[in-house]
Amino acid sequence: MKTTTLLRVAVIGLCASLSIEASRTASADEGMWLLTNPPRDLLKQEYGFEPTDEWMEHMQKSAVRFGGASGSLVSPNGLVLTNHHVGRSAIGKLSSGERDLIAGGFYAPTPADELECADTEVRVLMEIIDVTERVKSAAEPGMSASEAGEARRRAKTAIEQEQEEATGLNCQVVTLYNGGQYHLYCYKRYTDVRLVFAPEQNAAAFGGDIDNFDYPRYCADYAFFRIYEDGEPLRNEHYLSWSEAGADDGDLALIFGHPGSTNRLNTVAHLEFTRDIVGPTILSWLMKREVELTAFMGRSAEHNRIGQTRIKGVANGRKAWTGYMGGLQDPELFRQKSEAERRLRASYENGSSSQDPWVRMEEALDSYAEFYHERMALNNLFSSALASRALTLVRMADELAKPSEDRLREFRDTALPSMERRLFSPQPVYDILEVDDMASNLSMLAWVYGGDHPVVRKALGGKSPRARAEELVAGTRLASVDERRRLAEGGREAIESSDDSLIGLARMLDAESRSLRTRYEDEFESVQTEAYSDIADAKFALEGDSVYPDATSSLRMSYGPVRGWSEGGEMIAPFTVIGGMFERAELRAGEPEFELPQSWIDAEASLDKNTPMNFVSMGDVIGGNSGSPVVNTDGEVIGLVFDGNLHMLVGRYAYDERTNRTISVDARFIIESLKNVYKADSLVDEILAE
Amino acid sequence: MKTTTLLRVAVIGLCASLSIEASRTASADEGMWLLTNPPRDLLKQEYGFEPTDEWMEHMQKSAVRFGGASGSLVSPNGLVLTNHHVGRSAIGKLSSGERDLIAGGFYAPTPADELECADTEVRVLMEIIDVTERVKSAAEPGMSASEAGEARRRAKTAIEQEQEEATGLNCQVVTLYNGGQYHLYCYKRYTDVRLVFAPEQNAAAFGGDIDNFDYPRYCADYAFFRIYEDGEPLRNEHYLSWSEAGADDGDLALIFGHPGSTNRLNTVAHLEFTRDIVGPTILSWLMKREVELTAFMGRSAEHNRIGQTRIKGVANGRKAWTGYMGGLQDPELFRQKSEAERRLRASYENGSSSQDPWVRMEEALDSYAEFYHERMALNNLFSSALASRALTLVRMADELAKPSEDRLREFRDTALPSMERRLFSPQPVYDILEVDDMASNLSMLAWVYGGDHPVVRKALGGKSPRARAEELVAGTRLASVDERRRLAEGGREAIESSDDSLIGLARMLDAESRSLRTRYEDEFESVQTEAYSDIADAKFALEGDSVYPDATSSLRMSYGPVRGWSEGGEMIAPFTVIGGMFERAELRAGEPEFELPQSWIDAEASLDKNTPMNFVSMGDVIGGNSGSPVVNTDGEVIGLVFDGNLHMLVGRYAYDERTNRTISVDARFIIESLKNVYKADSLVDEILAE
Repeated sequence: MKTTTLLRVAVIGLCASLSIEASRTASADEGMWLLTNPPRDLLKQEYGFEPTDEWMEHMQKSAVRFGGASGSLVSPNGLVLTNHHVGRSAIGKLSSGERDLIAGGFYAPTPADELECADTEVRVLMEIIDVTERVKSAAEPGMSASEAGEARRRAKTAIEQEQEEATGLNCQVVTLYNGGQYHLYCYKRYTDVRLVFAPEQNAAAFGGDIDNFDYPRYCADYAFFRIYEDGEPLRNEHYLSWSEAGADDGDLALIFGHPGSTNRLNTVAHLEFTRDIVGPTILSWLMKREVELTAFMGRSAEHNRIGQTRIKGVANGRKAWTGYMGGLQDPELFRQKSEAERRLRASYENGSSSQDPWVRMEEALDSYAEFYHERMALNNLFSSALASRALTLVRMADELAKPSEDRLREFRDTALPSMERRLFSPQPVYDILEVDDMASNLSMLAWVYGGDHPVVRKALGGKSPRARAEELVAGTRLASVDERRRLAEGGREAIESSDDSLIGLARMLDAESRSLRTRYEDEFESVQTEAYSDIADAKFALEGDSVYPDATSSLRMSYGPVRGWSEGGEMIAPFTVIGGMFERAELRAGEPEFELPQSWIDAEASLDKNTPMNFVSMGDVIGGNSGSPVVNTDGEVIGLVFDGNLHMLVGRYAYDERTNRTISVDARFIIESLKNVYKADSLVDEILAE
Repeated sequence: MKTTTLLRVAVIGLCASLSIEASRTASADEGMWLLTNPPRDLLKQEYGFEPTDEWMEHMQKSAVRFGGASGSLVSPNGLVLTNHHVGRSAIGKLSSGERDLIAGGFYAPTPADELECADTEVRVLMEIIDVTERVKSAAEPGMSASEAGEARRRAKTAIEQEQEEATGLNCQVVTLYNGGQYHLYCYKRYTDVRLVFAPEQNAAAFGGDIDNFDYPRYCADYAFFRIYEDGEPLRNEHYLSWSEAGADDGDLALIFGHPGSTNRLNTVAHLEFTRDIVGPTILSWLMKREVELTAFMGRSAEHNRIGQTRIKGVANGRKAWTGYMGGLQDPELFRQKSEAERRLRASYENGSSSQDPWVRMEEALDSYAEFYHERMALNNLFSSALASRALTLVRMADELAKPSEDRLREFRDTALPSMERRLFSPQPVYDILEVDDMASNLSMLAWVYGGDHPVVRKALGGKSPRARAEELVAGTRLASVDERRRLAEGGREAIESSDDSLIGLARMLDAESRSLRTRYEDEFESVQTEAYSDIADAKFALEGDSVYPDATSSLRMSYGPVRGWSEGGEMIAPFTVIGGMFERAELRAGEPEFELPQSWIDAEASLDKNTPMNFVSMGDVIGGNSGSPVVNTDGEVIGLVFDGNLHMLVGRYAYDERTNRTISVDARFIIESLKNVYKADSLVDEILAE
């Protein structure tokens, strides 16, 4: 899975459904479990496996957080295994016109050859401390909900600071079970990270976007980095050893990684809202944009180049939402959810006299449905590179004139640095893409509001969407960072006297946009926060920590056997083999996504084509798990998570054991390809050393 | 333009806006004029051109109707010029595995080499008779609207039959000005049509779907056929001579062809409905299907082959609706339409006391808006190859039990043969495509109705859309023509006892579908028919035949100068030259749409690269005009219409002289390429002979 993209997709969805940390009664193999509270009974009962505390600690300190995704230490010398796509940005930054490491791959036979990566951070989780009592007790009786929230926030910050000062570690309070528990996670941070090995992009992402989320797959989506400390390779106590035997069909596969966010506590009404309103809207917009961008890119080689990154994000979002909708439109998911909700509501009604949070959610959703499309269309209008900055500048002039605590949250003093980083980013803006974006967004605004609505009349200024987009982009100087700085520093006066076309557009529509935002926050968001907190309380009261909390980007363990699934009456086998990659390359000859690197063509004869290449297992993962090690009960690496199938996507809302599968690179394949394609003998020796 | 596809797209739109024959006050260069009533004053005033009656008759008998599109006679020996894409189906039927005339092209140096085309018909319009009085007088005072309609229909059939018997010609009463006039068009039909010359598909459609509706263009979209009579080439008195000098920028270009259908009489409220409801719905559905089909086709070479035809239709529809929406979302179009409507309503209110038809339309549209999406989604569910037949069979069992006049119109005795032709067509059905269609349509049904609606519950049967689609396709035998015949012949009993999955689906949902159909017919269609008839009367009363009627697939003349237009501040020049084609092929190297045939690569050195290749002019065209000759005031061929730009599309609703342009192949290019690429000397000699 493409972590960053999946996470961005999740953000779109968050407009409708805030990430809620929550739990539900888990069926076997479901769950992203806390390492402090693994499902010991289930593991023992189903698999006869009883992990010791030492085993769990060893896994905790061998698994790493790699940027926003996952990885693992696989030698005592700081060697880190993760996905090629997780390390892709770092590899890209090491590339230049003459030396394209993305296309051509890289191998450092000795540490001296390893390349230092910019902006790359690896964290190892050293300690987990339960701070529930201290955080909870910060909120005193008699405080309002917002006062209590503020008190808890202050307590969390204090805990983090104290611990950082005491240990020198990077510390973070993680809210679990939507406030049922608070744990302090303390990381050792490493910022000197060097590239050891990367295959060619065409091997790592064989099948490209066509095969993404699909299975059978044939991806060499792995890469190796090394952590350095004080200029020397890290000497680490904990690391995973390698399984040369790999796994068989049915073997237990344990996954340790950082799932980003799930929404499994969502009420049935909320899921219906996502299925019937949010999903169709987002999906049809993504599809519209994908078709438009395809047309845009067809216009010239330059258009094609400029549109590449964008269309990949859009297509990946479309695939993700197709997966969500595929699951949400399955009545069986709703049957199970309704059943679980019925049970929880029964327990809630028995134990409490306050107003039913499920009813409060229903009412809030009904209210939100009234302006959902308008809010999304207007947000969308101000989502392009320049229009978004225009709105930021217009609002900034108003907001900075107020005391910090009265401002919109993204303009408060604590948030300003990251806001300014985005506002003044020197990232280039392409006029032709900006015109295409604006034309599309103006047209969408008119679709949603209707062509005669005053908001649309203002936005179009008497022109067609495309003509207006051309006029707006021709009439703005916001592509210049200097001009944006000038306007930001000039405050209200500079904004009011500006004749910039996009500043004018933002001035005209800010009131409408703010009014929709206020409605959203008052009528939906605040109700949602409280209702889900109450529901989480009810669930925690009923089940305690015998179940797992929703994903929160913190380290979790998932488990389940290596196993295929049934699709359209056909059984999908769990393993693919190297030979299948060559067959597929031949079948899809002529398509760039399926073009094998020369190294693979040269090595074909010397490879064992029966070597297992990728496999699927039942462990429960989500975006953020990319790069997670898959281990056997001896803690040996048997694979490397790099994707899930299309049914994994709806796992954001519910785990379906019939079809939800994790896709991993097989450990045996990594060794076979390092040896026989890349001749990376010293790396193989390091990995396999006892 | 792709006539057939454009016509099919139009049909989708007709769900919301019936084709209305109508007129509006024409601005210069606007209009699809009757040959019996050309805009003599405008032509004289603007261009100093005064066509004689003989000139008009010569054009009428030189222009031909080629299938559903246009063409012209260009020699005294039955030689017909039309587009390659108009003749494509005929050329395809002459192809075989060994001899692919689509890909490889064809040239018959002598009549003996010419190839007889199956199912190809060319018609020459011999006579036009005004039968307005006789048709109108058939409706007697005191008759109800439907009785009057029936009386007029009977009168038209009688007129057609009498004239066919008297002349042996193929006769057809054409309703003009929505009933303001009735003209009898008498055609001489020719069915022995032979292929003389076709270029390679890659030359004819250079740029493929990427460039369709775009400009600048470089298409050799022409072909030559020959009409035979009694086994000999036709000896025809009328034919067009060829202009070796061609046209210059600004020269008057006259177009004679068969525009299919326009809706320029639509009320402002109806256009708003199209802009705000129909357009966004159809366009987002087409885009959804395009993205899904692209994913489908990516799965294997077989999927790719099976999806080709379908995705072309969908992409073409998407381009067309993008064009409509681009125009409809332009406030200027509404300003002009509102102004014209205001004038007409003023004249109507002055002259009549009956209820205002504009208000009646508004009310009907409000009513239609309440169930528009449901109706479309349910129709869509029964639009796939097998589901559509299932619904037909279920309804047929009910309908055939009634007297003909009580049946749904498509089951009346007169309509049955064509219904049965579709029902029993042996055209192959691909299971995997049918599953993909059904899954998409079930998912759309759930989007529109909401996942918990009883209709959706019935349709899904407790499964996800894809699982249900797989189940339905696995459980039907309707792919077999024999099984369809068995069910059709078995009547109600066979249908009721059938355990076929799709018959079951159709049985379950027919009542809902019929109820929406009845609502549509009662609340919208019938009101629309009467309201537009009243509006047409008002318009005819005000303006008479000083204006042109809406397009009706009958022969029309359009006119306007060769002229470029301004797009995004950039002037688009009217002519392209041969050299541009080679440049574009180089720029887009590697894309199959831009791959030049070998004959062109071989001929490059011998071609005059400055020869004008394609050009744009202001003449008003629409789908059906493909293949129309473009002539100068001497009646000489200067070009051949093959497409319009994207702004032409909204011409269905309104002509915008700023941007609406017809795209033609230049007559000089046809000669240059026949001589120097195809060495078609005898064909050139025939065309240029005096």
